[in-house]
Amino acid sequence: MPIAKNHLVAVFGTSLIRKMFNEGTRLKAEHGEENVFDFSLGNPIVPPPPEFSEAIIRIMKEDIPGKHAYMTNSGYRETREFVARFLTEEQGVPLHMDNIVMTCGAGAALTLLFQAILNVGDNVVVSIPNFVVYKTYVENFGGELKTVPCQENFLLDLEAMEKAINRKTAAVLINSPNNPCGVIYPQEQIDALAELLERKSREYDRAIYLVSDEPYRQIVFDDYVVPPIFPSYKHSIIVSSYSKSLSIPGERIGWTAIHPEADEGDLIVKVMTTATTGLGFTNAPALMQRAIVEVNGKTVDPEIYRKKRDLLAGPLKEMGYDFILPHGTFYIFIKAPGGDDMKFVDILQNELILAVPGTGFNMPGYFRLSCCVEDDVIIRSLPGFKKAIEKTIEKN
Amino acid sequence: MPIAKNHLVAVFGTSLIRKMFNEGTRLKAEHGEENVFDFSLGNPIVPPPPEFSEAIIRIMKEDIPGKHAYMTNSGYRETREFVARFLTEEQGVPLHMDNIVMTCGAGAALTLLFQAILNVGDNVVVSIPNFVVYKTYVENFGGELKTVPCQENFLLDLEAMEKAINRKTAAVLINSPNNPCGVIYPQEQIDALAELLERKSREYDRAIYLVSDEPYRQIVFDDYVVPPIFPSYKHSIIVSSYSKSLSIPGERIGWTAIHPEADEGDLIVKVMTTATTGLGFTNAPALMQRAIVEVNGKTVDPEIYRKKRDLLAGPLKEMGYDFILPHGTFYIFIKAPGGDDMKFVDILQNELILAVPGTGFNMPGYFRLSCCVEDDVIIRSLPGFKKAIEKTIEKN
Repeated sequence: MPIAKNHLVAVFGTSLIRKMFNEGTRLKAEHGEENVFDFSLGNPIVPPPPEFSEAIIRIMKEDIPGKHAYMTNSGYRETREFVARFLTEEQGVPLHMDNIVMTCGAGAALTLLFQAILNVGDNVVVSIPNFVVYKTYVENFGGELKTVPCQENFLLDLEAMEKAINRKTAAVLINSPNNPCGVIYPQEQIDALAELLERKSREYDRAIYLVSDEPYRQIVFDDYVVPPIFPSYKHSIIVSSYSKSLSIPGERIGWTAIHPEADEGDLIVKVMTTATTGLGFTNAPALMQRAIVEVNGKTVDPEIYRKKRDLLAGPLKEMGYDFILPHGTFYIFIKAPGGDDMKFVDILQNELILAVPGTGFNMPGYFRLSCCVEDDVIIRSLPGFKKAIEKTIEKN
Repeated sequence: MPIAKNHLVAVFGTSLIRKMFNEGTRLKAEHGEENVFDFSLGNPIVPPPPEFSEAIIRIMKEDIPGKHAYMTNSGYRETREFVARFLTEEQGVPLHMDNIVMTCGAGAALTLLFQAILNVGDNVVVSIPNFVVYKTYVENFGGELKTVPCQENFLLDLEAMEKAINRKTAAVLINSPNNPCGVIYPQEQIDALAELLERKSREYDRAIYLVSDEPYRQIVFDDYVVPPIFPSYKHSIIVSSYSKSLSIPGERIGWTAIHPEADEGDLIVKVMTTATTGLGFTNAPALMQRAIVEVNGKTVDPEIYRKKRDLLAGPLKEMGYDFILPHGTFYIFIKAPGGDDMKFVDILQNELILAVPGTGFNMPGYFRLSCCVEDDVIIRSLPGFKKAIEKTIEKN
């Protein structure tokens, strides 16, 4: 049969998100959409800030030659200049537009970046819990994703990381605030990680890149801040998108920023800019690139997500659920009562609650809830959460 | 050094388009932008039809929940239904929305499709002259692009194709109207190709797909029509985009349509829909998907390109340039006077005219001009074209 055999597993295998999705569809059909409490999807429900729509309308009314034409693969000069200015302030390291590649979201950014920095057999080290698709992004180019344990509180376990790094390590990948656990790695950890990477880069005589995936940087609560990585380590690269900060994940607009002093940084930009043609991306969507400049750093109000987090986290804590209150993102990552996340997610499903088992993030024993739901869904779901934990505690 | 070695060639090698681009930049800096006649880029200069801007503005003003959120990877139901309806009429074969995958342009469509249908070692057969990036799209997944000669008039050489097809052939790829030569393969050729593929599919006991890349279908002249491929061959797949028909290549919106009776067609859709996550595309841009439905098949007026073609082709013919008047696209593919396209493109450059050598399309001895320029540029460039051919004829 003609279909590439390596994809059959992907399609028919035990993709947990897909399983949840199918199960969810079935439950919604059976019980009515409004009676199923779907906490499985990280799909923002908060509308974009009004500045976004205003910008698009303004641009569409303006007379701009070649408004929707191809531009330089890496993106409009104005957009890259804007991102460079924005990051110069955020990171405290002066960036130039040539350090920026605009991409079709952070996923495209990681894909292009890994095409640039991975030789077959190289590895990328990441701490659990981690976004499931990282593995594919790395394996696309013959790399290996090495997952390492985290500390009890989800912070980086630098000793475990040190053990995992070897002469084939091209990069360490971090995601802060972290999907699924919502933890922000503090300044001390970034500094310690930088020290480790400097030491290991010397030891193996290659620049080990620190890649920071930061789409949730703007979705943070309670005066937490995400420490900038550029001042701590020069071989560092940030990828991000406006998917969460502007609630526009469907529009596929993001970027890669390469530290101006990163080893072979210019070459990485050149390879990414060439590779974007060969991988079929070509460039980040033109209209969104123009809009980003006009929106000028405005974001959705993270307070909306903070309130949803508290609306859900408060009662769950009282019921006996065990979790660290997330510093950011719109997720809560919770210890599965009874210890078996697959089993507990099934129990929740009996209460018509959809959650993603931690196994999907390489961290069995936990489950993820997304707060991208109406307040009403949270409130109506609470009796189900209560029943689920009570049933489990009774049994054990 | 950490950069993936296989990309160094791509960046520093002899990419002809890049060479032209750099040379063009240098010439423009030296002689002033308005004095350089740049016929090298296929970047539409005709503005999109007004219905496009109106649609975007209308959508942005509407109150739509999750307007810019993630949707099903394959695209909005409404958009896929629209494309299915549109193609049902165009192809005369009834299509369902589940036969459609919305993609980030035709490049993404081919990338995802080749990921789905290629096993390592498979090949894809294409007639020259061909778009240079096809090779990368195929090689990304361990495939081999086999280029075969065409007839004198650029039509398919079916005997050459038959010789090239073997048991490792996953697909034959055609591009009609063709970039760079502007030729449309007529109904008889499509039928003959279908007959060949049916025979070869039986011989090798595998469905050899016919993949038709049709982004220029709407840019056709002089009552030419592009024959539909679906009625002729059931294992066929069309990829296209709105880049040329709406002049929005920067927005990255296209689709793949799989013949409802194609072997394992449902599986191809499933794999593409899964692969779009792993390759970092995720989905086609949301706003553009919504706009496509509202624009409802309107296109730019191909007459604009027809007039530009004639404005350029008429005088060139008189000067003695040898070419087939294109049936569609915005290109003219011309025999290089003297026979050496690289040399003649250099001679044109001395006249401040930028063209792409046929070598870049696997067809040395020709050069491509793009009519995506202002009429004024065409008119002012004519003395240069005259000098270039006269110089070459004198010498030979």
